[in-house]
Amino acid sequence: MKSLEASSSKIITILTDFGLKDPFVGQMKGVILSINPHVRIVDITHEIEPQSVEDAAFVLYESFQYFPEGSIHIAVVDPEVGSQRKALIVKSQGHYFVAPDNGILSYILKEPFYAVSIENEKYFLRKSPTFQGRDVFAPAAAWLSKGIEINEFGGPAKDIKVFKTLYDIQGFDDKIVGKIVYIDRFGNAITNIKPEGKKIRQIKINELILPVVSFYSQYPHKPAAVINSDGFIEIFIYMGNAKKTLSLEKKQTVEAFLDG
Amino acid sequence: MKSLEASSSKIITILTDFGLKDPFVGQMKGVILSINPHVRIVDITHEIEPQSVEDAAFVLYESFQYFPEGSIHIAVVDPEVGSQRKALIVKSQGHYFVAPDNGILSYILKEPFYAVSIENEKYFLRKSPTFQGRDVFAPAAAWLSKGIEINEFGGPAKDIKVFKTLYDIQGFDDKIVGKIVYIDRFGNAITNIKPEGKKIRQIKINELILPVVSFYSQYPHKPAAVINSDGFIEIFIYMGNAKKTLSLEKKQTVEAFLDG
Amino acid sequence: MKSLEASSSKIITILTDFGLKDPFVGQMKGVILSINPHVRIVDITHEIEPQSVEDAAFVLYESFQYFPEGSIHIAVVDPEVGSQRKALIVKSQGHYFVAPDNGILSYILKEPFYAVSIENEKYFLRKSPTFQGRDVFAPAAAWLSKGIEINEFGGPAKDIKVFKTLYDIQGFDDKIVGKIVYIDRFGNAITNIKPEGKKIRQIKINELILPVVSFYSQYPHKPAAVINSDGFIEIFIYMGNAKKTLSLEKKQTVEAFLDG
Repeated sequence: MKSLEASSSKIITILTDFGLKDPFVGQMKGVILSINPHVRIVDITHEIEPQSVEDAAFVLYESFQYFPEGSIHIAVVDPEVGSQRKALIVKSQGHYFVAPDNGILSYILKEPFYAVSIENEKYFLRKSPTFQGRDVFAPAAAWLSKGIEINEFGGPAKDIKVFKTLYDIQGFDDKIVGKIVYIDRFGNAITNIKPEGKKIRQIKINELILPVVSFYSQYPHKPAAVINSDGFIEIFIYMGNAKKTLSLEKKQTVEAFLDG
Repeated sequence: MKSLEASSSKIITILTDFGLKDPFVGQMKGVILSINPHVRIVDITHEIEPQSVEDAAFVLYESFQYFPEGSIHIAVVDPEVGSQRKALIVKSQGHYFVAPDNGILSYILKEPFYAVSIENEKYFLRKSPTFQGRDVFAPAAAWLSKGIEINEFGGPAKDIKVFKTLYDIQGFDDKIVGKIVYIDRFGNAITNIKPEGKKIRQIKINELILPVVSFYSQYPHKPAAVINSDGFIEIFIYMGNAKKTLSLEKKQTVEAFLDG
Repeated sequence: MKSLEASSSKIITILTDFGLKDPFVGQMKGVILSINPHVRIVDITHEIEPQSVEDAAFVLYESFQYFPEGSIHIAVVDPEVGSQRKALIVKSQGHYFVAPDNGILSYILKEPFYAVSIENEKYFLRKSPTFQGRDVFAPAAAWLSKGIEINEFGGPAKDIKVFKTLYDIQGFDDKIVGKIVYIDRFGNAITNIKPEGKKIRQIKINELILPVVSFYSQYPHKPAAVINSDGFIEIFIYMGNAKKTLSLEKKQTVEAFLDG
């Protein structure tokens, strides 16, 4: 049996598109705490654009890595709830992920990982064609936090659905070509280009050439790019909104020109 | 005296219309933790439409039942704060509720319940005509979580205000007639009609006949209804917004036609 | 070494303009819990208007005082991140504050306070020109909650930047002249005028004379003022929105006429 100290430091994070006005997130937390009153629940976000599985996949990837190993991450943006799509528990990189099989786990999968399909109804709150966030994923995470083995929930899962957007970059002698993968609340556009030590002279987006600077306030009121805190090239306007001013959209092509 | 284990697993939930931009919710949490640093606080929502007591009553009803017995639920949507309306603690269905007497507790009252009027100023933060969420309800909940008996707070309360909307349904041989009681962030309209095993053939809203399907993605892009995860008939458009497309509003009449 | 009871009741609050849709707040919490899994994290708000340091200063002032002494408050609205502006830990009024030196601490400083500049990279997650909320302030707060002495983080900080808006009031024989300092989600405009026992007859804003009442619902549908729960004069319209109806803005002059 786990000690109080151990069990009280178990973490379950939750990422959804359920928003914060309705009872959905509170219900999930009630279900979790009814099973494991000692677990610590942390919200990643509930403001993913409704049904935007790709955004959720990126935010999950950006978030989980800052939590301690052994953390359990529920990610439910689940437009196909009730259909034949599988419900998954995945162990990858020392973390556990509980989510539908719809691409949301694309960027956290790293070999060797292990995935099971949640099928054992003993760990459901109830069978549920419309709200598995509360009825399947939340209880699975809570039971996992109580020490139930991953194999108890169901058999191995194969052919997990993955998006490739984050890896869709092309390297050339003089440039790296990638795309915008996420736009944040400040209107900053995050690309999938990680220079990883290579020096970037300037970038091109929508026929516009932008300088690359070290930090936001260094370059006020005009569009520019930085290498952001996770290593990605990011387009911004300090004290402005790059998305609006430059009409930026997800999946737009970005070119990063190498120095020298 | 309570053991650490017992006290650290006590739960206080909070439901308000205070929003998340202002200091109000943080202040309430500070007050609670100053009285009981071991209690666990869970947000239900703070995004109830300002002063919409009916919405709050529905969301509270939908939420509390997923928490463990013994949980304490603060619900403060309180347009009449400072007036003569009573401040209540109610014990019902094994849960505690701390809220103004304005209808917000309509759907959690179930005989036998017990209600007191919060009058003992010993348990106030201070007398307060404008923010009893922080000054009366939060400290009452915190003291309750420390084991103070409900009768310590004041005498029995009678004639609690209740709304009837959730129960305003009519059963006929061939149909059930109810209404829309809540519209969620996805634009899905939840009605007060619970088929409870009866098979529903189709529903009628605003002269429109809609099919009843098993789960959302089964019927893409056109309006339909499901029996939702709490047993209510719900009108939706998969990958759309039923509220906007069908001009749905709370209190609109919905007819559910029984099969055969 | 701290007992479990002591360490599990340590509180870190977080106030930012990062919003709730992006991974930023979740990342900060992951960093904190990786350093101190027992600390309790409370959100004050993440919905400060982007880069509005003055609003953040006011909300921090309004919030911290309701938390127990010894609490640690992270406040990051930080448009100049990456520049030469200092990163601070301040001990004031028995609380700890972790924030950039940009005015955000204006209203919590009270002599005698003690301030250090965070310079010891041992307590950084990493050097970071774009996201010190996660990479500098969150880990500093977490290490502080583990008992690291404030002097371990860096040397004394001088000349902390402060705003004066909250104190910009003029007293006359017959009136107090101040200004609007904050507008809340209900459209209520909070001024910096604290009558502190003096009786206010009426107030003047934009050539409009408003009565002063005791609580909101006492004066429905027309503009009025109350002494709010923190002692400030506040302009409101019960069941309306004073900001919109009266075109209220921050920094507008308000006159409060003394009785008799």
